[in-house]
Amino acid sequence: MSELAAKAKELDASDRLAGLRARFVLDDAVYLDGNSLGALPTAVPGRMEDVVRRQWGSLRIRSWDESGWWTAPERIGDLIAPLVGAAPGQIVVGDSTSVNVFKALVAAVRMAGDGGGNGGDRGDDGSGRDEILVDATTFPTDGYIAASAARMTGCTLRPVAPADVPGALTGRTAAVLLNHVDYRTGRLHDLPGLTAAVHAAGAVAVWDLCHSAGALPVGLDEHGVDLAVGCTYKYLNGGPGSPAYLYVRRELQDRFDSPLPGWNSHAEPFGMRAEYQAAEGAVRGRVGTPDILSMLALEAALEVWDDVPVDAVRAKSLALTDFFLECVAAYVPAGTVESLTPEAHAERGSQVALRCPGAGDVMKRLIDSGVVGDFRPPDVLRFGFTPLYVGFADVERAARVLARTLS
Amino acid sequence: MSELAAKAKELDASDRLAGLRARFVLDDAVYLDGNSLGALPTAVPGRMEDVVRRQWGSLRIRSWDESGWWTAPERIGDLIAPLVGAAPGQIVVGDSTSVNVFKALVAAVRMAGDGGGNGGDRGDDGSGRDEILVDATTFPTDGYIAASAARMTGCTLRPVAPADVPGALTGRTAAVLLNHVDYRTGRLHDLPGLTAAVHAAGAVAVWDLCHSAGALPVGLDEHGVDLAVGCTYKYLNGGPGSPAYLYVRRELQDRFDSPLPGWNSHAEPFGMRAEYQAAEGAVRGRVGTPDILSMLALEAALEVWDDVPVDAVRAKSLALTDFFLECVAAYVPAGTVESLTPEAHAERGSQVALRCPGAGDVMKRLIDSGVVGDFRPPDVLRFGFTPLYVGFADVERAARVLARTLS
Repeated sequence: MSELAAKAKELDASDRLAGLRARFVLDDAVYLDGNSLGALPTAVPGRMEDVVRRQWGSLRIRSWDESGWWTAPERIGDLIAPLVGAAPGQIVVGDSTSVNVFKALVAAVRMAGDGGGNGGDRGDDGSGRDEILVDATTFPTDGYIAASAARMTGCTLRPVAPADVPGALTGRTAAVLLNHVDYRTGRLHDLPGLTAAVHAAGAVAVWDLCHSAGALPVGLDEHGVDLAVGCTYKYLNGGPGSPAYLYVRRELQDRFDSPLPGWNSHAEPFGMRAEYQAAEGAVRGRVGTPDILSMLALEAALEVWDDVPVDAVRAKSLALTDFFLECVAAYVPAGTVESLTPEAHAERGSQVALRCPGAGDVMKRLIDSGVVGDFRPPDVLRFGFTPLYVGFADVERAARVLARTLS
Repeated sequence: MSELAAKAKELDASDRLAGLRARFVLDDAVYLDGNSLGALPTAVPGRMEDVVRRQWGSLRIRSWDESGWWTAPERIGDLIAPLVGAAPGQIVVGDSTSVNVFKALVAAVRMAGDGGGNGGDRGDDGSGRDEILVDATTFPTDGYIAASAARMTGCTLRPVAPADVPGALTGRTAAVLLNHVDYRTGRLHDLPGLTAAVHAAGAVAVWDLCHSAGALPVGLDEHGVDLAVGCTYKYLNGGPGSPAYLYVRRELQDRFDSPLPGWNSHAEPFGMRAEYQAAEGAVRGRVGTPDILSMLALEAALEVWDDVPVDAVRAKSLALTDFFLECVAAYVPAGTVESLTPEAHAERGSQVALRCPGAGDVMKRLIDSGVVGDFRPPDVLRFGFTPLYVGFADVERAARVLARTLS
């Protein structure tokens, strides 16, 4: 056994989270793509069977009350809340991340312009705040949706590297949309510092947590984040395309003015009133009828977090990525790959991105050899480390297979 | 056996669609709430088990290609197409009805203002079209979302009874949002005539098919409808909160300018480009990652339509509602209930709405007696007749139990 294989064995033996792997359906592959689609939690198949056969098939319409379908968006939001450092009552689940980015960003611009003039949506509402800043290296959909939100609220959109945000903030800035962890490089951005800078400039901070929630502490309440969105199919293991979530800070809920005021966000949804009156609280972020099958699969999936401290998850995540970088340095000839992921723990999420020529083909061969990561154009191998089910022996094997594949 | 019970037996015996009931999981209750939540098709539980255990649990990320997850929205759209009279390539499935109403209505206003002035979204774009008409008795969410679409495009919103639309159309009308069948009364509106009137005024017609698709022929292509939306959990039996759909007429697809241009609608979604470029075709109506569990349950559910002609469904639907009205007239003392549903076949959907005092309590007692309809405030008993699984004996029994409950 090599030195690193022996070290992996030791690390696994002392890993207090190692037992959590049994909460997932896994096989012999090394699955390092949980940052794209989380593995199947063992609780899900049985729950889905009950939801389909009993709740839908037998109770049918009665399940909206009796099986708790109607309140699922806020109930499941409260299950996600502790994972992102939020007190209950501030998160609703539903719609896609893209749709939630739209809700959050339009609402943010409206909040920024609150006191202002003509009551319209335009930046010329008297507040003088008519610019949205967006992470220049964002996952594309955030940028596309931000452009639409800007267009529809009369704002201009300015892409800025996250580190340059403090210098780019002006009295014209209405809202800033940032990613907690960059989807490509795995860089962790300074959520507390950037949020404080946004607030100091009088603007509203919107964070996208897709690549951080479930892998590291977020601290939404603690750091005063205004609005946040995230998906649930990566580190939260909710299943393919499971619904996203929206966080609206409690103090801002009364000012949350949704661009998608569907009937589920009405104060009295079954009153069937022609006039819209927004519900109080996080429920105001709901839109239409929730997709119950996907939503209740997510609820079952979140059971894997029972008694799992997020700090322990973060510690293991850093240990995993540290060890991967160590194994890669040991096994892969120098100069063959270049890491895009920051060395500093404070700047690292739960993935490692390696740049190499022919990355698309390399990833195909890795997958054929039982090491599953993914490829992001033009030249990035992306490896996600889900602390709940990835172990250190997996990491050593992945680096070893990578070295063999590259040689 | 009473005369009507005997007639029911005869009608069931000669019903060529009677065998379709075996395609659903049903029990002894008379389920007349399929216009709210369709019953469970027998094909769904096994499919869901495969989707969860094999596609997600075993193939994991590979299923986006190998299990056809990525193309599900347009593939399932093409399954719905023949049910609403649309050629393939014009429907995508995803998001809620509310979200699709927003996409359709904003896109409609933009189409109406196409040639015009300043390139912005406002009604003052030079086209002079700055008004949206909406069905005054619409299901509330359509009205709420229409108000938001109006606000965000600089239009005014005017509620108008569908019959009054032709007289309300002016050169200022940008778009008209109408329901094919009224959710409360079951009234079927004149889709061909109203669409023609909207077009004659130079405006764009958007139809909500929630209460018609799957119960009667719609003829989207034939009647030149511009845009349409609908849910899939009523007569299409897709399951609780199953994803909605969006129809964009082929000739208008190049001009479909979505307010929710998520990465799934990009011409090259995996190119991860900072610049948005809309895909060609119906795919342009997609937004974020599709909710695969709900979506593939819907795909399995749509198998019940194999070899089922929509015209035969419509004929049975009218026979069912005719017979229900006949039984109610025979069993329920005159003056006890008042039907809100039109007598004329041309004006009737697939439900019967009866107004009566204490309707909420009456419905509770009906449900306790095994006849499941629903209550819509303030005083409406709503009975939906799904021709695929409701028979004439069910109808007779429902009227009989209703009479007993009311006496």
